[in-house]
Amino acid sequence: MPVISKRAVEMPKSPIRKLVPLADAAKRRGTKIYHLNIGQPDLSSPQEAMEALRKIDIDVLAYSPSDGFLSLREKLVGYYDQYQIKLSPDDIIITTGGSEAVLFAFMSCLNPGDEIIVPEPAYANYMAFAISAGAVIRTVPTSIESGFALPELEEFEALINERTRGILICNPNNPTGYLYTRKEMNRIRDIVKKHDLFLFSDEVYREFIYTGSPYISACHLEGIEQNVVLIDSVSKRYSECGIRIGALITKNKELRDAVMKFCQARLSPPLLGQIVAEASIDAPRSYMIHTYEEYIERRNCLIDGLNKIPGVYSPIPMGAFYTVAKLPIDDSDKFCAWCLSEFEYEGETIMMAPASGFYTVPGRGHNEVRIAYVLKKEDLQRALFLLGKALEQYPGRVEE
Amino acid sequence: MPVISKRAVEMPKSPIRKLVPLADAAKRRGTKIYHLNIGQPDLSSPQEAMEALRKIDIDVLAYSPSDGFLSLREKLVGYYDQYQIKLSPDDIIITTGGSEAVLFAFMSCLNPGDEIIVPEPAYANYMAFAISAGAVIRTVPTSIESGFALPELEEFEALINERTRGILICNPNNPTGYLYTRKEMNRIRDIVKKHDLFLFSDEVYREFIYTGSPYISACHLEGIEQNVVLIDSVSKRYSECGIRIGALITKNKELRDAVMKFCQARLSPPLLGQIVAEASIDAPRSYMIHTYEEYIERRNCLIDGLNKIPGVYSPIPMGAFYTVAKLPIDDSDKFCAWCLSEFEYEGETIMMAPASGFYTVPGRGHNEVRIAYVLKKEDLQRALFLLGKALEQYPGRVEE
Repeated sequence: MPVISKRAVEMPKSPIRKLVPLADAAKRRGTKIYHLNIGQPDLSSPQEAMEALRKIDIDVLAYSPSDGFLSLREKLVGYYDQYQIKLSPDDIIITTGGSEAVLFAFMSCLNPGDEIIVPEPAYANYMAFAISAGAVIRTVPTSIESGFALPELEEFEALINERTRGILICNPNNPTGYLYTRKEMNRIRDIVKKHDLFLFSDEVYREFIYTGSPYISACHLEGIEQNVVLIDSVSKRYSECGIRIGALITKNKELRDAVMKFCQARLSPPLLGQIVAEASIDAPRSYMIHTYEEYIERRNCLIDGLNKIPGVYSPIPMGAFYTVAKLPIDDSDKFCAWCLSEFEYEGETIMMAPASGFYTVPGRGHNEVRIAYVLKKEDLQRALFLLGKALEQYPGRVEE
Repeated sequence: MPVISKRAVEMPKSPIRKLVPLADAAKRRGTKIYHLNIGQPDLSSPQEAMEALRKIDIDVLAYSPSDGFLSLREKLVGYYDQYQIKLSPDDIIITTGGSEAVLFAFMSCLNPGDEIIVPEPAYANYMAFAISAGAVIRTVPTSIESGFALPELEEFEALINERTRGILICNPNNPTGYLYTRKEMNRIRDIVKKHDLFLFSDEVYREFIYTGSPYISACHLEGIEQNVVLIDSVSKRYSECGIRIGALITKNKELRDAVMKFCQARLSPPLLGQIVAEASIDAPRSYMIHTYEEYIERRNCLIDGLNKIPGVYSPIPMGAFYTVAKLPIDDSDKFCAWCLSEFEYEGETIMMAPASGFYTVPGRGHNEVRIAYVLKKEDLQRALFLLGKALEQYPGRVEE
C-alpha cells in the first residue's frame, strides 16, 4: 500500500474534531449537548438571500468567472466603502470561503520553509494552510492575563530572520475576541514596512465589535498598501457559513495575478453562493442591527456568567463571538472530553473547544477553553449553569 | 514590495486564458464568437435540480459536514452501483468540484519532489495542482497518429524511479476523447501493482461514451483497491459546472483520514451545491438519454465536418465531449490568436484551445487544437464553416 505524504501526517487534527466521536456517543445515549465549540451562528440568514435563491431563473448552472462575478465585486466595493476601505472591483478576488483566501494567499506568497509570524492563540486552520504551502508559523504569545493584547515590537523582531515573509493577524480575533487598537495596528504597520513583509489580515468579524472602539483595518494603514492581503468572508456577518463565499483583497497587482493562477486552476468559486452573497449585501440595516444587538446581549450574558463561576476567568472580548476563558482545571483537553463522556446533569452537557488547538507551543493554554456565544440567551444561561456543575464535579479540578 | 512565491511563478498560465483579452476585444468590435474552447455544456441542468433550489426551506445556511452530507453520499452509492462500482458512503468524500479532489489527492499522497506519470496531452490544471503540492509531472506521450492510445508498458517503466508515487489518467479523456480499453486498463493495473503506486483516475466523463465499448473504471481493477483514488464531479453529467461539487473516492482508509484533514481545514464543501447535486441524481433516465443523444449527434457532426476540411484530421473520440484535431498550420497558439484578432467572416469567428496547453514538452502538439462540442448542432456547423474559411486565409498555413 503506498504511503501518504509527510505533509498529510503533519496536518493538525483539530482538538474539537477529536471530541466529535465522544459527542456522537453522548447524543446516542440521549444526552442533550449545548454547542459552545463552533462558530456556527444560529441566527437566520437574511430574507433577501433566501428570496434570491428561490427566484433563481437560469437554465444552466454554469461556471462563473474565476475571480467571481463582477456584479458581486462591484457591490462589495460599496460594502467596504462603509468602513472607509477604498477599493476597486479589480482589487477583490472572490474565493471559496475565507479558507481558500488564506490558502491561496499562502500559496502565492510563501515558499516552502518561509516563515510567518502569528500572535497566538490563533485560529487553528492557519496552521493547516501553512503546512499545505510548506510554510512555517512562528508564534508570539499573548496571554489571558493581559487580555490578549498584542505583544511588544521586540517580541516580533526577535523572530524575524531571512526566512520571515509575513505577519498574520485576525482582527477582531478568533479565538480571543480581542480587537487591536490603533496603536497596536501602527506597531504592526511599522514592522511590516521596516522588513517589507506581507501582512495577512483576517477581518471576517468586523461586524462584531461591541465596545465603540474604532475598527482599524489593515487596509487603513498607510504606506504598506502593496503588502496588505485582506482575508474576508460573508460566513459570519450574514450567518451563511455554508455557502462558502469569501474574498482575497489586495492592492498588489503582481500578487493578484499570482493568486489568479490558483483561482483559474480551480475554475470558479461557487455560483449559487455568489448569488446569495450578492443579495445579502442588500439586507436592510435592521438585519445587521438585530444581529448586533443579539450578540451584545449574549456577550454580556456569557461573560458575566463565566466570571461568576468560582475559579473561572474570562476577559471581556471586544469583538467576534468567542472568548477564551481560564478554568480551574488540570487540562482542558481532558476536561472537555470528560464533559462529553463522563458528565451530564439532568440529561444535558456542554461541548467546548480546548484552547490547546489554538496554541502551537505544547502546554500553553492548558487550562483554557474557547467558548463561542452563538446560542440564544436562554441556552447560554443553561450552558453556563452546566459548566458550573461540571467544574464542581470534575475530578481534575485545580484551585489556584 | 515583497515578492511572490516561486510556486506562483511556476504556475502555468493556461493558453486559453491568454486568448481571453483577444476574445474580449473581438466582442467589443461586435464580432460573434463560437466558443469551442471550454468544456461548459450549453444543455440545461436537470429540472429536479432547479426545483430543489426553489424549494429550499432552511433558515440558516450553515456549515455542512467536512466530508459532505451523508444523504448525498448514500445516494451516490446507488449512482456508482449502476456502473458496478461498489462503495459504502464512507468511501466517498464530497469536494468543492473535481478540482479540489485532485488538489487534496496530490496534497495527501505526494511529497515535494515526488513524481507522477501522466499520459499527455492532458488536462492542463493537473499541472497546476501538482505545482501546488510541489510534485513533478512526468509525461508519456500519446499521439494523434495512434488515436491517443495508451503507450506501451516500457514507456511507463522507463520513467519510474525512486521518486515515482503515482500514475494519473483521465478516462474518458479530456482533451482527446480517448477511452481506455480493458487491455490498457489492465496494463495500468499491472504497473501500479508492481511498483505500489497510487492510481489517480479522473472519470468525470463516464456518461459520455459513444462507441458501445465498455467503461472500465479504475475501481473495477482487482488487486489495487488500496491504490486507487477516483476523482469525480457532477459538473459535466448534469451540466452543473457552477455548483462546485465533486468527490474523492478511495477504499484506502489511511488515505481518507489524510484527505479529511485537508477537508476539515476548509470546513465544508458548498451547502447549496450539495442540495442541487443530490436532487440531480433523481433526474429521470430521459434527461440522461436526451443529453447522450445530443452529444452523439454533435460528435458526428463535428468529426465529419472536421475531416472534410482540407488538411484537417481528427480521430473519432470515443468519449467525453472534446477532440484534438490536427490543422494545416505552423503554430496553433498563433492560429487561435489570429482567429480572434485578425480573422472574421460575416462578423463571426471561432475560439479554440491551442493544444500546447495540454502538453508539457515544448513543441508537442504545435499544430493541434482542442475542440469542445458543447454547442448545438447548427452552431457547430457554422463554427466548422468558419474554421474552414479561417484556414483558407491564415498566412501561416502549412501543407503537409
